[in-house]
Amino acid sequence: MQTETETLTQQVAALRSGAVSSSFLAERALDRAVRFKSLNAFVALEPAHVMSQAEAADVRRMQGRPLSVLDGIPIAIKDNYLTQDYPTTACSEALPLEPAGTDATMVANLRAAGAIIFGKTNMHEWAYGATNSTSRFGPTKNPHNPDRITGGSSGGSGAAVAAGIVAAALGSDTGGSVRIPAGACGIYGFKPSYGRASRHGILPLSWSMDAPGPMAAALEDLRHLLPFFCGADIKDPATRHAMPFDDTVSGSRPKLIHLTGKGLERSTEVDTAIRSALSRCDADVTVAALSNIAGYFAAWETILHCEASAYHAPLLARNAAGYDAVTRAHLEAGKLLAGVDLLKAQQIRAVLGRRLADLGNWDALVLPTLPVVAPRAGEEWQEFGGRRVTTQDSMTWFCWIGNLAGFPCISIPIGMSPDGLPIGMMLMGRPNADEQLLAVAGWIDGNLRAGN
Amino acid sequence: MQTETETLTQQVAALRSGAVSSSFLAERALDRAVRFKSLNAFVALEPAHVMSQAEAADVRRMQGRPLSVLDGIPIAIKDNYLTQDYPTTACSEALPLEPAGTDATMVANLRAAGAIIFGKTNMHEWAYGATNSTSRFGPTKNPHNPDRITGGSSGGSGAAVAAGIVAAALGSDTGGSVRIPAGACGIYGFKPSYGRASRHGILPLSWSMDAPGPMAAALEDLRHLLPFFCGADIKDPATRHAMPFDDTVSGSRPKLIHLTGKGLERSTEVDTAIRSALSRCDADVTVAALSNIAGYFAAWETILHCEASAYHAPLLARNAAGYDAVTRAHLEAGKLLAGVDLLKAQQIRAVLGRRLADLGNWDALVLPTLPVVAPRAGEEWQEFGGRRVTTQDSMTWFCWIGNLAGFPCISIPIGMSPDGLPIGMMLMGRPNADEQLLAVAGWIDGNLRAGN
Repeated sequence: MQTETETLTQQVAALRSGAVSSSFLAERALDRAVRFKSLNAFVALEPAHVMSQAEAADVRRMQGRPLSVLDGIPIAIKDNYLTQDYPTTACSEALPLEPAGTDATMVANLRAAGAIIFGKTNMHEWAYGATNSTSRFGPTKNPHNPDRITGGSSGGSGAAVAAGIVAAALGSDTGGSVRIPAGACGIYGFKPSYGRASRHGILPLSWSMDAPGPMAAALEDLRHLLPFFCGADIKDPATRHAMPFDDTVSGSRPKLIHLTGKGLERSTEVDTAIRSALSRCDADVTVAALSNIAGYFAAWETILHCEASAYHAPLLARNAAGYDAVTRAHLEAGKLLAGVDLLKAQQIRAVLGRRLADLGNWDALVLPTLPVVAPRAGEEWQEFGGRRVTTQDSMTWFCWIGNLAGFPCISIPIGMSPDGLPIGMMLMGRPNADEQLLAVAGWIDGNLRAGN
Repeated sequence: MQTETETLTQQVAALRSGAVSSSFLAERALDRAVRFKSLNAFVALEPAHVMSQAEAADVRRMQGRPLSVLDGIPIAIKDNYLTQDYPTTACSEALPLEPAGTDATMVANLRAAGAIIFGKTNMHEWAYGATNSTSRFGPTKNPHNPDRITGGSSGGSGAAVAAGIVAAALGSDTGGSVRIPAGACGIYGFKPSYGRASRHGILPLSWSMDAPGPMAAALEDLRHLLPFFCGADIKDPATRHAMPFDDTVSGSRPKLIHLTGKGLERSTEVDTAIRSALSRCDADVTVAALSNIAGYFAAWETILHCEASAYHAPLLARNAAGYDAVTRAHLEAGKLLAGVDLLKAQQIRAVLGRRLADLGNWDALVLPTLPVVAPRAGEEWQEFGGRRVTTQDSMTWFCWIGNLAGFPCISIPIGMSPDGLPIGMMLMGRPNADEQLLAVAGWIDGNLRAGN
């Protein structure tokens, strides 16, 4: 019987039992990276560096002193996380192709745990877009169909996991950038509560909404990864009160609220898949309409654009030519937004958090991750549920809500469309109840899988 | 022997001993209000209403059940605190002269304690200025010399206490509005740490810097008043973690840092008075220069103008004619400030807090309250220490630092200028160490008074 090693959880078990070595996993990952090179998932990958990390892990394991359960497991890193060993450019030509000489806190955590820092993944330039079609290294392709986009901005991480190159990867999420490619590529992606996981060493997009997050092949994989994400980091003041991940939380039959209403439209195939999954997952499901989506969305956009423009102002002044024209236009436009409108947006953000919290006695709020399946590359517009919006806006359509509110969110795959493209379900939990959200997702995922 | 009842502390003792009645205190206050009518300290005052509160207090006291130590003591209220019984207009014609029908939390606290809500005091329109020369009810005059301004924006409260009409009054402070008139009128004024005392029911100026604060005839009076200010109020989210006032804190010989440097200039007479007081108060005094004052001041102004413009936008749109032309110009100008600059200002604010905290092992930072004595009414410019600035800017010259940092601050009178005008010393404490700051002020005030 062949040992299953496609998920991180399986890899943990196989390494522990000695069924496989880290070198085997690393070599296979490198082989697959070559085989799937056309996906353009990786922007920096050094086979010799990967193998030397794997060999060191094998030595530790042979000596009976692995650094953690993750010791020897290849994990891919989105190109906006600073890494000692690889360049970090957020896939923009505005930054030099040189190693930063330092690790983001998440990378340092994984490196200290013995994980193989496998390579840097492609992303939407500066994370300022959700299609992954704008990158100094070119667009990323969807493993389910190379004519389709991966979504972004963590599209390379999504493609790398969905293609089976690695079982897990790091993403970051300001308006859905972990969940969007997770949904479009049919994998699992988790955005922690704002302030629960350190942003230190991740090139910012919008500092009051940015969150690092794991992307993986299976739900249980997230349970292995989240302890390395959650908790206080002196280098990120927002995490001052962050609790470590509590792995003793388990779930019971969850109360779900499926959100609908104007501004939350979705295509028929996506809606059918969500409703079918909700009917099959043995949960207590009610439906609620959320009003004023347009107002909340404007608040998210205002905060995003103001913070991005403020962060980028010095580099943009020095090296405007290094930015893609659309990114640059966004950054220039953001400078024109008024302070009074930013304040209004910050107030509306507080209202959204209260409004969601007060929807009733819920364990998770449910939406599709995306209103459509992964769009064709080059398609400018998407039509669904009576709406016609840009492909960009269709990607963030639901996901930004979690960032504006600061709530933890997860995307789980719930099935395939008739033409073979993944459909994802997004669940939002209560602030800092990341463990409870994972338990809800585990309940739903387990029941859907048992019924397959 | 005549009973001393000029300070709130003396009034507390005299009421407790039965030496005077509340009706006596109220009637005397009303008499003095008439005598000092030309100061224009009060904008709403109903003798019958005052006397009925006093008589009810006397009944409670006779029955042996006073509501608190403050029961029966007249306290004046700045006109931007909502009051059930008096109109609240922030001295602007943009609001109707009608009672609000509800009390600000501080007013409700005092009313529940049995204090006589004595009347509403004159203020700089909307608290958007520090001279008290702009008010729908006309300017306020300084009791020490009617040709001089009181400073503001709590100028009516300052004048009412300094003239001996009441022993205590409520002010509010966004850039010094409690401390400035306290300094110019020779009384005591305390601005609590941001988030320590509820802003609920006070018409906002800049919600991230506004603080309510007591003004009184003696330092010990503040110790009686602060317990009614400090603590959590469910109606003000900023006070969520606020601790009640701890009256067990006492002081020892304090370590003071006298701040100097570019941007902290003051007139010779003020500087001489401060240095003399510091040399006489038996404290451990060092001197430190604070750099980049201009940058921090720009941050304070940016936050102030953005927040004020955001708050006023709806009323300004409906009733622009109700605003003074200068106030309106400020509010219109604030709309033009950019979101990116507001974000930069918010970051600079965080830097200031760390910079002050890191100045060393200090119990209080020392500055004059004002760089000059109370200016002549109508004077547009002040010259001191090689500077020439508007009278407005001379009033907030030092005080805004405490609001931008969110630190607790107190102004205490330390002497008189050669031409008989008060000079105040400002002390800043560490965030939420309001009790420790009061103890430091008590040490200094006690030693200065003992040496008189």
